[in-house]
Amino acid sequence: MVRLRGNLIVGQSGGPTAVINNSLVGVVREAMQQDCVEEVYGARWGIRGVLDETLMDLQREHDSVLEGLRYTPSAALGSVRYKLKEDDYARILEVFRAHNIRYLLYIGGNDSMNTAHRVHQLAEAEGYELRAVGIPKTVDNDLIITDHCPGYPSAARFVATAIRDTGWDTESMGPSSPVKIMEIMGRDAGWLTASAALARQADEDAPHLVYVPERPVSVEQIGQDVLRCLEKYGRAVIALSEGVRDETGEAIGAHQAAVEIDAFGHRLKGGAVEYLGQALRDIVGTKVRYDRPNYLQRCFASEVSSVDREEAYLVARAAVRDAVAGRSDVMVTLVREPGSEYHCTTGLAPLANVADAVKKLPNDFMNEAGNFPTEKFIEYARPLIGEPLAPYVRLNRFFIPKKAGR
Amino acid sequence: MVRLRGNLIVGQSGGPTAVINNSLVGVVREAMQQDCVEEVYGARWGIRGVLDETLMDLQREHDSVLEGLRYTPSAALGSVRYKLKEDDYARILEVFRAHNIRYLLYIGGNDSMNTAHRVHQLAEAEGYELRAVGIPKTVDNDLIITDHCPGYPSAARFVATAIRDTGWDTESMGPSSPVKIMEIMGRDAGWLTASAALARQADEDAPHLVYVPERPVSVEQIGQDVLRCLEKYGRAVIALSEGVRDETGEAIGAHQAAVEIDAFGHRLKGGAVEYLGQALRDIVGTKVRYDRPNYLQRCFASEVSSVDREEAYLVARAAVRDAVAGRSDVMVTLVREPGSEYHCTTGLAPLANVADAVKKLPNDFMNEAGNFPTEKFIEYARPLIGEPLAPYVRLNRFFIPKKAGR
Repeated sequence: MVRLRGNLIVGQSGGPTAVINNSLVGVVREAMQQDCVEEVYGARWGIRGVLDETLMDLQREHDSVLEGLRYTPSAALGSVRYKLKEDDYARILEVFRAHNIRYLLYIGGNDSMNTAHRVHQLAEAEGYELRAVGIPKTVDNDLIITDHCPGYPSAARFVATAIRDTGWDTESMGPSSPVKIMEIMGRDAGWLTASAALARQADEDAPHLVYVPERPVSVEQIGQDVLRCLEKYGRAVIALSEGVRDETGEAIGAHQAAVEIDAFGHRLKGGAVEYLGQALRDIVGTKVRYDRPNYLQRCFASEVSSVDREEAYLVARAAVRDAVAGRSDVMVTLVREPGSEYHCTTGLAPLANVADAVKKLPNDFMNEAGNFPTEKFIEYARPLIGEPLAPYVRLNRFFIPKKAGR
Repeated sequence: MVRLRGNLIVGQSGGPTAVINNSLVGVVREAMQQDCVEEVYGARWGIRGVLDETLMDLQREHDSVLEGLRYTPSAALGSVRYKLKEDDYARILEVFRAHNIRYLLYIGGNDSMNTAHRVHQLAEAEGYELRAVGIPKTVDNDLIITDHCPGYPSAARFVATAIRDTGWDTESMGPSSPVKIMEIMGRDAGWLTASAALARQADEDAPHLVYVPERPVSVEQIGQDVLRCLEKYGRAVIALSEGVRDETGEAIGAHQAAVEIDAFGHRLKGGAVEYLGQALRDIVGTKVRYDRPNYLQRCFASEVSSVDREEAYLVARAAVRDAVAGRSDVMVTLVREPGSEYHCTTGLAPLANVADAVKKLPNDFMNEAGNFPTEKFIEYARPLIGEPLAPYVRLNRFFIPKKAGR
């Protein structure tokens, strides 16, 4: 087979993750081993860097920098959220021609896969030989066909440990402050919110309730669920997706809409957690606390999953090999091998398919009541988050007889 | 010297920390080595457990439980926030007499030291021989006399790493989303907020601005500071104390007061971060993001400082030895040894002094502008947070010449 000679460009797109730089390093290292790849360029700020021709030579980076990037969260090239306009595609091809770029490796989610797909289509239409291969990345875990998306396992590990620890905090404050909500990322899919259940050792551990966008729920129902947990455990720690919907299908808190701010006369939008917190105070009559770790979910390096770090690296190397082998208009996928020991290999999916779809939590990954993940979800997700977490312990509480009256 | 024979009680009070159980274990293990201490009791839910006589036998706990507690965040006995009433003190003494409790070891902050002090006073007035010794604990680090408070170093390490990581996240999103605020605990003292500066490797790293309660600042001034950072670094990541005050001395956001909620007709209080975020959007004209890790700051076990874990244990052992040696109405302190290598021994401070005071950040721990900690603060705090953090790396960014026109 005659391999396509030319230069390669890699870009990072969308929200960064704690391991996305592993995919960048994987591309660079694999590309440098391929004779047909001449120069290895990085696009500054994703596709914007292509449009305005802000390209970096990645082969000149010292290997100590590349190795360091494997432990540095966030997108080292700079990322972007930019919706391409129609003329942009022609401009991309113009830049590719000027620099003899024959390989496009694009790391991102659905939108990024759509970008890579569109560029491939235009190149084909114009007879410009190009290999466009997508590398999956999203903490939302909502790309189809792939078993899971690099970036998700580390975010899941962070969420699992964060809700575990804040759960123990809640437990130790006892009846004075028994309800806590953690708001978790994921507007349309509940994968990350469900992962809150992964660090639980016992029934009484947090989270006690998990609400995801796939399963609409009324505030009144949440209130009833919380009352039941208070009865049973003396506390209720809730993992709440930012995208959770009420029985009418509207995002919880959305109709609360706005807040008047005296000094500026602005309207400030509150989120699901503020709204639900206030409502629960009324229904259950206790204090309600909340945590909103927001961006920490996708960048917290000390909770990176070792499985995720390695897979983010491997999918990128596979992507370069596939491109060099002549594949284009595809995204590399993770394919879980059957068997009891967790192991993934890589596969391929058409970019067009991936770009158009969102993978929701399957119905049987949540219980019937829609308020907790099933064992099937746990079996799916637990191998992804890496090393087992150190167990926490409770006192046995050997109470002694009272003898001081009252 | 004739040592006071009798039983010992230990309690945990106020907000838990990631290492407070080390102080509990320190008390139990040291007490079990002292012949004059007969039984070792734990009070369930702090002083409430004494009032309602809910006491646990801690000597029956297996050593594997005690060892496990050293790595378990939150207060294993259960904690409490309860302001004692006048008659409560007599009841405490009643319970102590009934159980022959002669040693009170109380782990907490100012309020807890006040409790221990008052119990000591009443015992003395009634001729009941009692040793009351306080063990410092607070992520706020605001107890006087002691060099620092166990619990603070671990919270500081979490805050430093969290703002570092969210800073890299902000950096990688570039101009599309260049301002981020992290709200940090500490209503009256800026110790924890200042610790955001501890993980910075370079000038351009987060945080770029740090605002503490000790240094009132106008929203307009913050806006100017942010504009300057955007000019200089292209981004501005802000560590904002929840207790930061404006030029009138009022908490920022306090007068924003309330939010109407349609469905329930409630008023919901917004915090400093929402208010400032909205104001900055107006002043700087960019997106403003924020993180509010709330309780994660005091419970996140995977960012525990190894120094803190050990010191929380040592102060507790020292407290028992001091009590057995006849001291009472004192709190154990950490005393930093002079010399280049960090090392602390323990000392003692009168409970009454500690109970009445709050240690603010010294003036020379913040710069003149009041928007960043000084090197003096860094020198004070860095040794506390334990092992050095793994360095992160940036690409050198070897840009290549443009050749595609436009």
